[in-house]
Amino acid sequence: MTQTTPVVTAFEWVPEFARGLVRDLRVRWALEEIGRAYDTELLNARAPRPEEYLARQPFDQVPAFTDGDLQIFETGAILLYLGEQDERLLPAEGQARWDSIAWLFAALNSVEPVMGRIVAYDIFNKDADWAPAARESAVGLCKQKLGRVNHALAGKEWLAGRFSIADIAMVTVLNNIRHTDLVAEYPSLAAYKARGEARPAYKRALDAQLADFKAEAPQAA
Amino acid sequence: MTQTTPVVTAFEWVPEFARGLVRDLRVRWALEEIGRAYDTELLNARAPRPEEYLARQPFDQVPAFTDGDLQIFETGAILLYLGEQDERLLPAEGQARWDSIAWLFAALNSVEPVMGRIVAYDIFNKDADWAPAARESAVGLCKQKLGRVNHALAGKEWLAGRFSIADIAMVTVLNNIRHTDLVAEYPSLAAYKARGEARPAYKRALDAQLADFKAEAPQAA
Repeated sequence: MTQTTPVVTAFEWVPEFARGLVRDLRVRWALEEIGRAYDTELLNARAPRPEEYLARQPFDQVPAFTDGDLQIFETGAILLYLGEQDERLLPAEGQARWDSIAWLFAALNSVEPVMGRIVAYDIFNKDADWAPAARESAVGLCKQKLGRVNHALAGKEWLAGRFSIADIAMVTVLNNIRHTDLVAEYPSLAAYKARGEARPAYKRALDAQLADFKAEAPQAA
Repeated sequence: MTQTTPVVTAFEWVPEFARGLVRDLRVRWALEEIGRAYDTELLNARAPRPEEYLARQPFDQVPAFTDGDLQIFETGAILLYLGEQDERLLPAEGQARWDSIAWLFAALNSVEPVMGRIVAYDIFNKDADWAPAARESAVGLCKQKLGRVNHALAGKEWLAGRFSIADIAMVTVLNNIRHTDLVAEYPSLAAYKARGEARPAYKRALDAQLADFKAEAPQAA
């Protein structure tokens, strides 16, 4: 079949703390791993998107993904879609396929939620008097999850044996708490994250996201 | 091929507030929708599981799922696996397949994390003096997510048009905040949740989970 050029939505500008964390990075990384060219459609993060955008991304976020006639939202779903196109991202069948898919969901549902709490306390509510105590209660859970992933990585280079979409999800999820020293407490996990970020495809994806940001913040709505 | 009998791990006892919420319910529901028999393996929720269990469920939680030689963890992955076996749970291809998968991920990654925060504040930290303020900051985000799903449901019976694994995930995710009136503020969403819980397969799955709980709490470790 003729190769289409997928389109990924991203933001034209975000504050410093969010650069390298916006989720279109995950999709760009997967596309870079398989050498597939893509276009970006840049949106204003500081104003609501047009109503019609909700049909593409019901939570009014990025990325939305278009490939020919197909539209997909949620980075997990987009990664799975790209994985099904190319075995370098996802084994085609059997236990190896399901190990990668299980770890993809684990990154997004067992690990990312507690990262989100740490970010909420440290960044979005950093001046609130209740934030330190709330953070303390979340750090215990965070360490439990990081410890479990660290344990699962013992003797393995990647979560499901060989590199897959699960690693794209987990490495970028762990990066949400890059402003802390939490990951560094777990040597296998820290080495794993560094291994992911050393991949040329990751670097190209990150450079592309950063290059797309304008120097000046756009008008707020 | 010969039909195997899958095995789902579940807890032999949980406190009242968790009954009907433990995640094996999602897998039982999917199996009931397609009329597939399964066995359960009941674990003590109050003691760490044997070390070997981590190979089946790296976060030491339930459910772990076994089907013949295949082992899968994470409810999202198990639902996807079952969906790929039966079109009553997931369309086989095209936009309809990806809509269901996108909403499956949305339930688990865009909606469930903020439900988890509400539960953390209302239940696990209900006596903490910082919990009310932390809750207040999460309720705004929670309402935003619920409003988006409510909007997406306008004129639709199910998230992806017809019933799918996305609805099993979303209905059970919404149930995490059954102790609040938050869902009731969104009429389309509340009607959708009621529609899901009225399905005979949901009722059979819930009855089966509840019937498996022992009357007495087991020994803690």
